[in-house]
Amino acid sequence: MDEHIQDTQRARAYLARWAARVEAELDRLLPPESEPPQVLHRAMRYSTLSPGKRLRAVLAVAACEAVGADGERALSLGAAIEMIHAYSLIHDDLPAMDDDDWRRGRPSCHRAFGEGVAILAGDALQTLAFEVLSQLPALAGIQPSTAVAVTAVLARATGSRGMAGGQAADLEAMGRAVDAATLSFIHRHKTAALIRASLVSGALVGLDEGEAGLRDPVVAALGRFGESLGVAFQIVDDLLDADDERKADEASYPRLLGRERAVQEADRLTHEALAAVEALGPRGQLLGAMARLLRHREA
Amino acid sequence: MDEHIQDTQRARAYLARWAARVEAELDRLLPPESEPPQVLHRAMRYSTLSPGKRLRAVLAVAACEAVGADGERALSLGAAIEMIHAYSLIHDDLPAMDDDDWRRGRPSCHRAFGEGVAILAGDALQTLAFEVLSQLPALAGIQPSTAVAVTAVLARATGSRGMAGGQAADLEAMGRAVDAATLSFIHRHKTAALIRASLVSGALVGLDEGEAGLRDPVVAALGRFGESLGVAFQIVDDLLDADDERKADEASYPRLLGRERAVQEADRLTHEALAAVEALGPRGQLLGAMARLLRHREA
Repeated sequence: MDEHIQDTQRARAYLARWAARVEAELDRLLPPESEPPQVLHRAMRYSTLSPGKRLRAVLAVAACEAVGADGERALSLGAAIEMIHAYSLIHDDLPAMDDDDWRRGRPSCHRAFGEGVAILAGDALQTLAFEVLSQLPALAGIQPSTAVAVTAVLARATGSRGMAGGQAADLEAMGRAVDAATLSFIHRHKTAALIRASLVSGALVGLDEGEAGLRDPVVAALGRFGESLGVAFQIVDDLLDADDERKADEASYPRLLGRERAVQEADRLTHEALAAVEALGPRGQLLGAMARLLRHREA
Repeated sequence: MDEHIQDTQRARAYLARWAARVEAELDRLLPPESEPPQVLHRAMRYSTLSPGKRLRAVLAVAACEAVGADGERALSLGAAIEMIHAYSLIHDDLPAMDDDDWRRGRPSCHRAFGEGVAILAGDALQTLAFEVLSQLPALAGIQPSTAVAVTAVLARATGSRGMAGGQAADLEAMGRAVDAATLSFIHRHKTAALIRASLVSGALVGLDEGEAGLRDPVVAALGRFGESLGVAFQIVDDLLDADDERKADEASYPRLLGRERAVQEADRLTHEALAAVEALGPRGQLLGAMARLLRHREA
C-alpha cells in the first residue's frame, strides 16, 4: 500500500479514536441537564456535544504525544478547547453576527433556545473552559505553573488579540471590499490563533515545565505547524462554502482571489505546515497526515 | 465625632482612593484603542472605563489587606474582576436580555457600537480577565498555585453555577410570578457570587498559599461577609429602582414582599455581614463600614 494512503488511514483512525474520548470527557465536565438553571445547562450541552470533528482537541492530544507524553494527559485540556470553540460558534451564529439558523445539521443554539439563553450559554462555556484549565493540576496531574502557562496561551488566542479580534474584523468586513492584508488578519486571528494554541498548549501540558516549555524548539515547530494549518483550514472551509449564496457577503480567498489561486494558497500553506513538523519523527508524520487529510476533506 | 460617622468617612475615602488606582490599572491592562481591531478595543475600553464604584475590586483589595498583605498586591486581580463585571453588564444590557439603552448615564455598549461588537466586547473582556489572572505570578508576585486557585474561585462564581446561571434564572423569571426561593437563587448567583469571590480571591492573593488558603478561617469569614453583602447589595439596588417602570417585569424583593419587608431583609443581611467580620480587627471594621455605606447609598 502507498505510504501516504497508510498515513491517511492512520490519521483518520487517530482523529476518530480521540474524538470519542474527548466527547466522553466533555460529557463528564459539563454540568448535568438536571442541574438548575436547566435551560442554560441544556443549551450548553446541546451545542458542545453536537457531532463534530473535535479537531482542536485531537491536535492538542497529538502535540502532547509529539513531545513524548501520553496523549491522555491532554484530554481535559482538549475538552476545554472544544468548549471555547463551541462558545465561539454559538455567538458567531447569533442574528447580530453571521445570523445562521443551522449548525452541523441542527438548529443553531439561539434557534433552539432563544437569543438570551444562547448568549449566556456561550458566555458560560467560555468560563467553564477557564475553570477546567484552572483544575488541570488535579485533572491532568500537571504543575500549577504549567496550568498558568496554558491559560495564558489559550486566553491570548481567544480574546481580542486572537479569535474574538478576528471575528470583529470579519464583522467589519461584511459586505465590504477587503484587501488581502485584511483577509489574512481575519484568518490568522479568527481561525488560526486557536488551532495554533491547541498545539502549543498540548505540548506545554506534555512537557510540564511551565512557561519554560515555550522556549522548546519542538513547541515552536508545533506552533508554526498550527499557524499554517489554521489558515489552510479556513481557506478549505471557504472553498467548500464557495457556492453557498447565504455566505456571499463574507470575506474569503475564493471571493477575493478566485477559486484557482485560493486552491494554490491552501496547498502552499499545507506544505508549509508539513515542513514545520518534518523533523519531529512518527508524531510529526501523524500531524502531517492530518494536515493532508484536512486539505482534501469534503465537509 | 460619632464612631460610626468616622468609620463611614474612612470607608468612603478608602473606596475612592482604591477605585482610582483600579481605574489606572484597567487603563494599563486594556489594549489601546489604536490597536486593531480598533472598534472592538474602543468598545472594551468604553464599557470598562466608564465611571463606576469599582466596588468588587476594592473589596478584593480590602480582603487582601484583611489577611495582612499590602492591598497593592490585589490591584491586577481587582482589575480582572472589574473586567468580568463590565462584560456581564454589556451582555445584560443587550436587547435579548434586559434591553437597556443606558448604562451609568451613557448609551449602553450595543447602542454605541452595535450589537455584534457589544457581544464580542463582552466576550473579549471575559477572556482578558482570565488572561490577567494567568499573569498574576508576574503582575502580583504570587505563586502559580495561588493564581490557579484564584482562577478556579472566580470561574466558578462567573459561570453557569454563578453569575451566568443567575442571569439565566432571572431571564426565565422575567414577567412571571416567582417565589422567594427562586428570587433567592437569582440574587445569590447573579450578584452575590461575584462579590463573594472578590473577597475570597483577594484574601487568597494576600495569603499566597495556593488552594490551602481556602481553609483559612479568615477567608471563610470574608466569604460569608461577601455572600450576605452581595444579596443585601442587590436588594438595595432593587429598592432604589422600585419606581422605575421600565423594570416593572423584573423579579425583586420589593415587588415580591413589598417595600417594608424588603428594607427589613436588607437590614438583616447587612447585620449578618457585619457579624461575619466583627472579629477581624481594623480591616474587619473597615469592611463593616463599607457594608453600612452600601446599605444606605442613594445610587
